[in-house]
Amino acid sequence: MKIRVYYEDTDSGGVVYHANYLNFMERARTEWLRDLGVNQHSLKIKDNVMFVVANMAIKFKKSAVLDDELTVHTKLLKLKPCSLDLIQDIFKGDELLIQSSITVACIDASQLKPLKIPTEIKKLMETL
Amino acid sequence: MKIRVYYEDTDSGGVVYHANYLNFMERARTEWLRDLGVNQHSLKIKDNVMFVVANMAIKFKKSAVLDDELTVHTKLLKLKPCSLDLIQDIFKGDELLIQSSITVACIDASQLKPLKIPTEIKKLMETL
Amino acid sequence: MKIRVYYEDTDSGGVVYHANYLNFMERARTEWLRDLGVNQHSLKIKDNVMFVVANMAIKFKKSAVLDDELTVHTKLLKLKPCSLDLIQDIFKGDELLIQSSITVACIDASQLKPLKIPTEIKKLMETL
Amino acid sequence: MKIRVYYEDTDSGGVVYHANYLNFMERARTEWLRDLGVNQHSLKIKDNVMFVVANMAIKFKKSAVLDDELTVHTKLLKLKPCSLDLIQDIFKGDELLIQSSITVACIDASQLKPLKIPTEIKKLMETL
Repeated sequence: MKIRVYYEDTDSGGVVYHANYLNFMERARTEWLRDLGVNQHSLKIKDNVMFVVANMAIKFKKSAVLDDELTVHTKLLKLKPCSLDLIQDIFKGDELLIQSSITVACIDASQLKPLKIPTEIKKLMETL
Repeated sequence: MKIRVYYEDTDSGGVVYHANYLNFMERARTEWLRDLGVNQHSLKIKDNVMFVVANMAIKFKKSAVLDDELTVHTKLLKLKPCSLDLIQDIFKGDELLIQSSITVACIDASQLKPLKIPTEIKKLMETL
Repeated sequence: MKIRVYYEDTDSGGVVYHANYLNFMERARTEWLRDLGVNQHSLKIKDNVMFVVANMAIKFKKSAVLDDELTVHTKLLKLKPCSLDLIQDIFKGDELLIQSSITVACIDASQLKPLKIPTEIKKLMETL
Repeated sequence: MKIRVYYEDTDSGGVVYHANYLNFMERARTEWLRDLGVNQHSLKIKDNVMFVVANMAIKFKKSAVLDDELTVHTKLLKLKPCSLDLIQDIFKGDELLIQSSITVACIDASQLKPLKIPTEIKKLMETL
């Protein structure tokens, strides 16, 4: 997934504000799910299911600046009953800027409690 | 209401990113309502009522920078059946940075449709 | 310009947080300038020139929600020596959600003072 | 440091958007530095020195919602020549919501390269 850096993403250090890389990764996870056929809005409204970040380890190696075009790579590492482990890396061209490993938990959207990943979605993910 | 400018609020132009002044104004409206005894979270959960911005005119006169301490002044201009007109100005010390006039509408939180301002809240606002 | 609504753009009211529409409009202005051949990052670094929002009037007519695909229309209304007036509207399909009129000022990036729009850029804009 | 949750901090999941906890932690680091007598804006402008996040591990245990009042605890774990390790936890009352360990690097603000922490600041930190 391609991401363009706009003014909103930067800070007065002249680079992308660190927390905003998490936005880029979240956009990439959303598109990764959409590519699998999963729409998070209808998943929440119709099935009362949400995917939320439970754990995250990030290494900020290099900074991006205004107008950069970045690519986010998302890779499924492990599929567990109620969560999934992902690797998400952000590149500028061939250069690795950000490395992260993320656990995304499946939860009940109204009670915010752990939930088994719906079987249909699990099957789609197992095809990866 | 006092607001401190953090890195998150700035952009690579070296100043506060223009849309973030709207966050400062929203914080000030929330505290203005809280001072009146209105908690927006319980208003939404218990009474299905939300206040949302319907119209806004803003003049960006001067820029704030990292670490500035700003003050947001909120003044009720006019109380209407389903909405209120406010003036919100942002100062750095005595210097006026931002001038705005805002119409906030009262809406039904589930259907997102106009709603009369609840009588209790209206009475509280009339005391101002 | 097409914009997809992600979690980062929404708030607990269930809709896009009002200030985030300003981000969408800023992205569209950046791409509008890029289409004209103007790169804001190099404009700042090489020529010490920035475009900043000086005035804005916005009408929030309808709300967008998670996963919506929006379109931002940007139209030059008037070109002045040190600023330009734009109309920016946000649509969801055929439906108009947001109407805005914006004055963007040209400034000296280090002193943050008004500046004449560089002749080359002015000529590019006059072709519109 | 006390943080109030506003609409800008939440997402349509009804809770605080995960990346926004990083904003809260950044505000707390800024105030932690200010309490030590270090102003990041003048540090950058006068001394060409910036502190940036190099590594971060975060555990999102529980969610905060609109209008919550949170507390961020910041503790220095280890002081190294060019960086420092911090523990930052976010509480709602007595309840631990977020646990994080963060490495903050000292860099040259113009070249974005590693830099020894200035002796004066190091001495201030050693008193903790």
